[in-house]
Amino acid sequence: MTAPRSSRRRRSAKTRPDDTARAPYIQRQLGTFNVLSEAGLEQIEANADIILADTGMEFQDDPEILTLFADAGCDIDGTRVRFPPGLCRRLITATAPAQFQQHARNPANTIQLGGDASVLCPAWGPPFVHDLDRGRRYASHQDFTDLVKLHHTLPWLHHSGGVVCEPVDLPANKRHLDMLYGHIRHSDRAFMGAFIGAERAGHAIDMAKILFGEAFVAENAVLYCVSNTNAPLVMDSHMSGALKTYAKAGQPVACTPWVLTGAMSPATVAGTLAQVLAETMAAMALTQLVRPGAPCLMGSFASTMSMKSGAPTFGTPEAGLLVLAAGQLARRLGVPLHTVGTLSASKLPDGQSQQEATWGLMMSLFAGANLINHATGWLEGGLVTSFEKTMLDHDICGKVGRFFDGIDMSENAQAMEAIAATGPGQHFLGSEHTQANFMSALFRPWTPDDNSFEQWQAAGEKDAGTRANALWKAQLDSYSDPGLDPDIDAALLDYIAARKAEVPDREYF
Amino acid sequence: MTAPRSSRRRRSAKTRPDDTARAPYIQRQLGTFNVLSEAGLEQIEANADIILADTGMEFQDDPEILTLFADAGCDIDGTRVRFPPGLCRRLITATAPAQFQQHARNPANTIQLGGDASVLCPAWGPPFVHDLDRGRRYASHQDFTDLVKLHHTLPWLHHSGGVVCEPVDLPANKRHLDMLYGHIRHSDRAFMGAFIGAERAGHAIDMAKILFGEAFVAENAVLYCVSNTNAPLVMDSHMSGALKTYAKAGQPVACTPWVLTGAMSPATVAGTLAQVLAETMAAMALTQLVRPGAPCLMGSFASTMSMKSGAPTFGTPEAGLLVLAAGQLARRLGVPLHTVGTLSASKLPDGQSQQEATWGLMMSLFAGANLINHATGWLEGGLVTSFEKTMLDHDICGKVGRFFDGIDMSENAQAMEAIAATGPGQHFLGSEHTQANFMSALFRPWTPDDNSFEQWQAAGEKDAGTRANALWKAQLDSYSDPGLDPDIDAALLDYIAARKAEVPDREYF
Repeated sequence: MTAPRSSRRRRSAKTRPDDTARAPYIQRQLGTFNVLSEAGLEQIEANADIILADTGMEFQDDPEILTLFADAGCDIDGTRVRFPPGLCRRLITATAPAQFQQHARNPANTIQLGGDASVLCPAWGPPFVHDLDRGRRYASHQDFTDLVKLHHTLPWLHHSGGVVCEPVDLPANKRHLDMLYGHIRHSDRAFMGAFIGAERAGHAIDMAKILFGEAFVAENAVLYCVSNTNAPLVMDSHMSGALKTYAKAGQPVACTPWVLTGAMSPATVAGTLAQVLAETMAAMALTQLVRPGAPCLMGSFASTMSMKSGAPTFGTPEAGLLVLAAGQLARRLGVPLHTVGTLSASKLPDGQSQQEATWGLMMSLFAGANLINHATGWLEGGLVTSFEKTMLDHDICGKVGRFFDGIDMSENAQAMEAIAATGPGQHFLGSEHTQANFMSALFRPWTPDDNSFEQWQAAGEKDAGTRANALWKAQLDSYSDPGLDPDIDAALLDYIAARKAEVPDREYF
Repeated sequence: MTAPRSSRRRRSAKTRPDDTARAPYIQRQLGTFNVLSEAGLEQIEANADIILADTGMEFQDDPEILTLFADAGCDIDGTRVRFPPGLCRRLITATAPAQFQQHARNPANTIQLGGDASVLCPAWGPPFVHDLDRGRRYASHQDFTDLVKLHHTLPWLHHSGGVVCEPVDLPANKRHLDMLYGHIRHSDRAFMGAFIGAERAGHAIDMAKILFGEAFVAENAVLYCVSNTNAPLVMDSHMSGALKTYAKAGQPVACTPWVLTGAMSPATVAGTLAQVLAETMAAMALTQLVRPGAPCLMGSFASTMSMKSGAPTFGTPEAGLLVLAAGQLARRLGVPLHTVGTLSASKLPDGQSQQEATWGLMMSLFAGANLINHATGWLEGGLVTSFEKTMLDHDICGKVGRFFDGIDMSENAQAMEAIAATGPGQHFLGSEHTQANFMSALFRPWTPDDNSFEQWQAAGEKDAGTRANALWKAQLDSYSDPGLDPDIDAALLDYIAARKAEVPDREYF
């Protein structure tokens, strides 16, 4: 399962960044940015209750859910569930935990979900990958492995993620097993479960039990599930099946409406917010009916679309307002917020992609989001994972982490002696204080070229994407295998082989 | 003075953006993001007072200033001025206005400085320009004129700025006259005065009097001066001469320490903040001694440097913390905040430049900054004004403007009827609500390509910079002369000719 090293990937002192301290997650020392008043929040909450009571939500092909909601006092009409006002909120606030951990096999990488913690995950879901050498192409199992390894080397990511790309050269109905194995084998960070259907979710839990032991998994969160509603106001059995499986097992579920305003929700922020809140509350309430106290997150993946072409758009003012308001709504529910990061509709790692990416990730952090999916690499509205953009976005990840450390007000940082000793018109470059602090005082991103024009010219006039190309190859080359207990490894491979043997390969989900 | 239209600049329906409403400035409906606690702010303020009292500040080659400060109770030692603790703050809070206007010759473009208003200005100062057709080159008078005209067409800028590039083909000691004329002739927005030296500041005031009338200028702010200290803790007579001239004339002065932490200030945020506050307070106090009530702004242009190479760096976590804290400090002083926007060290309009640019402008808006210089076009640490980056940055300007409109909570925006009428599993694309709102509901930036990969491929696989190249040419082509009273025009040209005839051309300032 080890990626062969291509001869192209030479270790280069010039492109290798400095070693950088790893933290298991960002611990935000600063506050959040609020965009809705108390009255505005109450209005959105009242509207969500009206939507849930009057229009309700469809839960398709899953009679167990209808029974659960009926027993809780909902009105059931076919597959339509209508909720008494306030019911979902009461179910959530009664038992959903405000904060919990997802364990990694390396305890140093165990993450906190909730409170002041923000966890950054790589891109999720793209069927294509892109790099500047090979262009845009269908993603392969090799690409998947390369991305897991690349991510594992990146200090400012915190989570190995899930479908970092779709390995479309593997059978559609079995590749979730290879993906789970890839995360477990090549990274020692936390990883996501399989999202589609109860059966695959069960496979993820089985594999987690092999890795962590049954007793540990019974008591602790070791997986992470994103459950998307089909906005507006539908949940299908693929999603609800996985949601129920993880919730029953006490594994966290991020209940995440995915909407493009104007298409899957009204073309306005206030309208979209009420719908998103209604959908996520219904799904979170379901997790609590399945297992009171099951860890869940309010999810919001709300972006916009071009009103000219209907194409999805990202990094927009409205997307920023939506996530900031979602943060406020999640805090009032007392649950962590799951959302999205460096999204872009660009086809290249260029000015558009980094303008949209920076906007998106900053807004999610200002929202106080607790888990941010797609924090690196997402291009083309989620169709592509870009190796170069992964490196550019990783710098934004590092920047927001350092920014949210806030301002060091220690005596050393106040530097009053240095100012007195330096005096008017002198410079601080050679001062004792600068010498003592220069290694750690200022954050050092990897991809910018801050040199003079002449130095940059002599180095080949490379743009940021081109520099990122050299960097990701150097990073991948530097990948160090975290190792895995051979007995566990063998047991996982046996398990996977047994599951694969049970059914023929299929080219659809 | 009219730029000849190059044959390359064909009006193209494909590249011309939609017409967009112009606003004279951003009126922020959202709050600010605070990074320092009350105790932290008090500590920084106490430290600034210690710096001013113990180390003091040098005011070079300007005895009038020493007399003013001595009369106010300062200790004068040669050119060193030491300030009794609290004096500067008392002078500022006693008479400096919290809010004022800078008038434009078109009253619709008059700006507010202070309160919830944020005004965005183009790049200031670069001796080079860059575009993708002609590459990097020394800036010319033609480039200057093209930039003034281009900026005038851009709805999300609010101010014509000053040295949008240095027209180095004009004599160094006279080009300020041509620049002032360029702003007056080709734009009807507010513009900046000449910054270097009392004489040139006087020329700007003379020209403003020709444009606005003497009586109006006596009573109203019609110019804008940025006065930089030479950090650490020095102000030279070039800067103090202009500062005094504008302050005496009741014209606003942005008192702006320019520091790179680690070089011109300590390598820490807290140390830099205290020094910046000390310097800006001393300069603002000077404006109030020159003319009590003269409009002034707290300025902060604080960025970082590479601790490896000493090169200036931008869009960094520390730069963000510095501007957010500066916003808090300015509000406590009761004066508007002047700062900087889309700074970048990149050589190209690429992923680096837009990552740094987006970070910088967003932070300045979150800081509640009232005038943001360099909101478009700045590359290479201020050595270059980029035509393409101007277009990319302009989209960020539009985005922050729309973002700070906040969330529309009107009944229409709540869209409750649309949600009820659409129902689960349907789409909103054809709904009455979407039809009624689609033109205005979502912000539409100009430079992104949100189309499918196949459409993008068919359109030539252009990156954002390449699209911006076509856009700025189409914009410049669309420039519409705002006109100028022929008598005023003639009087301005006479005045300029007379000033130019008084002294020989010089190739230095």
